[in-house]
Amino acid sequence: MRRIDSPLTIFLVGATGDLARKKIWPALYDLFKQSLLPDTFNIVSVARAKYSKAEFADFLAQTVKVEKSDPAWKRFISTIEYVSGDVMDPKTFTEIEEAHAKIAPCGNHLWYLATLPSLYVSVVKNIKAEQLQTTQCGWTKLLLEKPFGVDLATSQQLNKELLQVFEEDQIYRIDHFLAKETVQNLLVFRFGNGLFEHLWNHQFVDHIQVTSAEQIGIAGRGVFYDSVGVVRDVLQNHVLQMLAMTLMEEPTSLDPAEIRKRRMEFLSQLEVVPSEQIGARVAFGQYQAGQVDGLQVVGYTGEKDIPAESVTETAVAGKLFVNSERWKGVPIYFRLGKRLQQSVTEISIKFKEPMNSMFSTFETPQKGNVLTLRIQPNEGVIVRLNVKQPGLELQTGEVSMQFCYHNQFQMDLVEAYQKLLYDAIQGDTTLFPQAEDIDASWRFIQPILDYLADAQTKPLPYAAGSWGPAAFEELIAEDGRRWLEPRPDMCVV
Amino acid sequence: MRRIDSPLTIFLVGATGDLARKKIWPALYDLFKQSLLPDTFNIVSVARAKYSKAEFADFLAQTVKVEKSDPAWKRFISTIEYVSGDVMDPKTFTEIEEAHAKIAPCGNHLWYLATLPSLYVSVVKNIKAEQLQTTQCGWTKLLLEKPFGVDLATSQQLNKELLQVFEEDQIYRIDHFLAKETVQNLLVFRFGNGLFEHLWNHQFVDHIQVTSAEQIGIAGRGVFYDSVGVVRDVLQNHVLQMLAMTLMEEPTSLDPAEIRKRRMEFLSQLEVVPSEQIGARVAFGQYQAGQVDGLQVVGYTGEKDIPAESVTETAVAGKLFVNSERWKGVPIYFRLGKRLQQSVTEISIKFKEPMNSMFSTFETPQKGNVLTLRIQPNEGVIVRLNVKQPGLELQTGEVSMQFCYHNQFQMDLVEAYQKLLYDAIQGDTTLFPQAEDIDASWRFIQPILDYLADAQTKPLPYAAGSWGPAAFEELIAEDGRRWLEPRPDMCVV
Repeated sequence: MRRIDSPLTIFLVGATGDLARKKIWPALYDLFKQSLLPDTFNIVSVARAKYSKAEFADFLAQTVKVEKSDPAWKRFISTIEYVSGDVMDPKTFTEIEEAHAKIAPCGNHLWYLATLPSLYVSVVKNIKAEQLQTTQCGWTKLLLEKPFGVDLATSQQLNKELLQVFEEDQIYRIDHFLAKETVQNLLVFRFGNGLFEHLWNHQFVDHIQVTSAEQIGIAGRGVFYDSVGVVRDVLQNHVLQMLAMTLMEEPTSLDPAEIRKRRMEFLSQLEVVPSEQIGARVAFGQYQAGQVDGLQVVGYTGEKDIPAESVTETAVAGKLFVNSERWKGVPIYFRLGKRLQQSVTEISIKFKEPMNSMFSTFETPQKGNVLTLRIQPNEGVIVRLNVKQPGLELQTGEVSMQFCYHNQFQMDLVEAYQKLLYDAIQGDTTLFPQAEDIDASWRFIQPILDYLADAQTKPLPYAAGSWGPAAFEELIAEDGRRWLEPRPDMCVV
Repeated sequence: MRRIDSPLTIFLVGATGDLARKKIWPALYDLFKQSLLPDTFNIVSVARAKYSKAEFADFLAQTVKVEKSDPAWKRFISTIEYVSGDVMDPKTFTEIEEAHAKIAPCGNHLWYLATLPSLYVSVVKNIKAEQLQTTQCGWTKLLLEKPFGVDLATSQQLNKELLQVFEEDQIYRIDHFLAKETVQNLLVFRFGNGLFEHLWNHQFVDHIQVTSAEQIGIAGRGVFYDSVGVVRDVLQNHVLQMLAMTLMEEPTSLDPAEIRKRRMEFLSQLEVVPSEQIGARVAFGQYQAGQVDGLQVVGYTGEKDIPAESVTETAVAGKLFVNSERWKGVPIYFRLGKRLQQSVTEISIKFKEPMNSMFSTFETPQKGNVLTLRIQPNEGVIVRLNVKQPGLELQTGEVSMQFCYHNQFQMDLVEAYQKLLYDAIQGDTTLFPQAEDIDASWRFIQPILDYLADAQTKPLPYAAGSWGPAAFEELIAEDGRRWLEPRPDMCVV
């Protein structure tokens, strides 16, 4: 294990929010327990809530679900200071600096902004006002959550503001999908096996499919979600980054700069869909009442905080192309959204039919091979193959062979936020999208957003628990192809 | 299902022998029960034993393990005539013809020689003497078991004798390995999947391994085995034919003539090992006493009917090459024999390492991919892959994905002899080696036989239950490779 020994202070801004509670605190404590944080380590927590230090400690124990008397927890808690204040107010940052000086020696600084994205600019301005963007005794880094802007212009504006305070190489932008073990595995799977990389191009691949579906609805986050929609929430970031890891050119090494360059190249090669083609190439849906896993659920406009006339899209399907020699002419179909039939994220590579037609006259003609990388849940890889069916006559039958993470490794998969914090501290930037990635993604997304913003565009209704509106099927069927049903039985524990 | 309707008589010569009892009668009855034989169907059984028709029926019921009162069995038995006689004696064939005339109308004739191979020539001469090599009302076919001769010269001589009586296209030579479902599957696996065929050549394959091992010893067949040895018994036929199915060029269609042509081409392309290199490229073993599956067993020369000074080889390992563009420079390692560690037949394709060296500095460097086709037992396909190991650091780990016949199909695999009888009746020659195959195989084997015949050559001792003498390991280790251990846990039911 790599491990740095200089003293480290993490400034966690938004220390009581949803993300901090669900992901960041558990990840920090896990790293602490594994002794993967520096020996001299502190957290200055910042939030609006008026907690005393002791009350905050109680809040954390509940959040992380731990016994307060646990010795490791007591040591962890002793590293933490709490500052209550408004992050829009520069005075709060004076208090932050004082709290820090009280508990921590001079060392490395990691600012983690777990606030509303609308506060990012104020926070970094206040950091600068207090001269906290550098430290005398080490590095300062800034960790930021997506979304980065709401479109190309605001994203570029945000970046400009950040670069007034921090250098690009101080900024770590989080897309937590990249830190999933199964997404990291895409690197090993492609380049660590002699078997597949040769087949990873337009000569052998018929098309690619990405499904990133959730059964859940907007889960109480109505105000946020209605202003965002699935294109901004998932397509612009997670899905495009996953595709980049799956389909980018081969890096010459595992050097983070090299891998980031390849991902960025891929995103820059996405063919921006011409405005007039968006109607034909992308379809939008909004869920209606329906049944999910046997339970009746309300439609999107019936959810709390959602206006009855909302036209926010909760699902999207489409077809994109990549302007590269490797992928020329290979369509990439995507479908994603909420209240869909399964909760599943996977990428499938559909290979071309064999070039011979030996088996074409069979009762059960063989199907093209499919390799599916299951990102979540029930992580693994499945390959659909044709073999001889048992019997006196030669007939083909489709079978599958699979590898399941949980079958072959005794260890649990590492939670993405643990990995992200660990890497940010180590300075390994591999899994962090860079400014150019964000830019390239928004450039691809912008015409879709413009189309959605058009008063004429209304998402198509679909029943909760279905695979989206009929238009999703038509979009792929008109190319003579079909969506591959994610196998609910795959790698089930 | 295909099915011919003309009347058919099978002349089963050697109707009470080992092969007839274990394989042919059960297969015939299975076909009969499935209504896969013509409506008008008879068997004229020939053997030396002095059975009455009723006694023979009893013998058969015991052989096939069936209730004599079973209605299907009663119908089956009613189709059978028995002739007791010496097949060296022409008079026996007069009786055969009389028995046939008594029960069967004019129709198709299938002669199945399940006798000692040394009787083949006498039998076909007697068939000719009675003019039974043709029939007025259909075809006549001759079904023969291996071995076809004991070396190149005797094989060619046998073939010449057969062709005095039958045309080449009347002769069906049996190598029952070809009729195993998993061997037939090699056709579908390679040519029915877009995924693998592109990788099936020297550009991507490092080497190939065949293991065809048995835990059993010579099982009471001492007299036969001692005159034969494993090279003649398994290498010359089963192993070379399996390799041909696995590695031959792509047929343009499933036309039997086309597939046979490709197999024959492959066998003709086997590089005949120069005499002076045999010592370095092929190693021979003979089993000593040892433990097999925890049981103490005697050595080969301690077996019944085996002379103490016997130098018959019971195991062989070696390396061969194929003179083809596809396989140039790719070594094919084989090891086969009796009293080895596992009972297993499989072919493994070891692919080259990836061309990049991204992961070369890892603690656990990734291994080249292996695709294993398990012919028996626990039939299936297994692929060894490298993936990311769970954990914060990027490290590769080897995993496997597998397809198991018994998991994915409800039906049992068809017994090879059922398939062979069915195909011979239909006239589908796909799975029958032709004269040129036999010739090419012996041509490859002959220098090995000559080397073995040399008084200097003594097989190396190996403990029963091991993987053969140390020379088997050295043979592959000196090329910087190692035998892949067949996975005993693969596809275990």
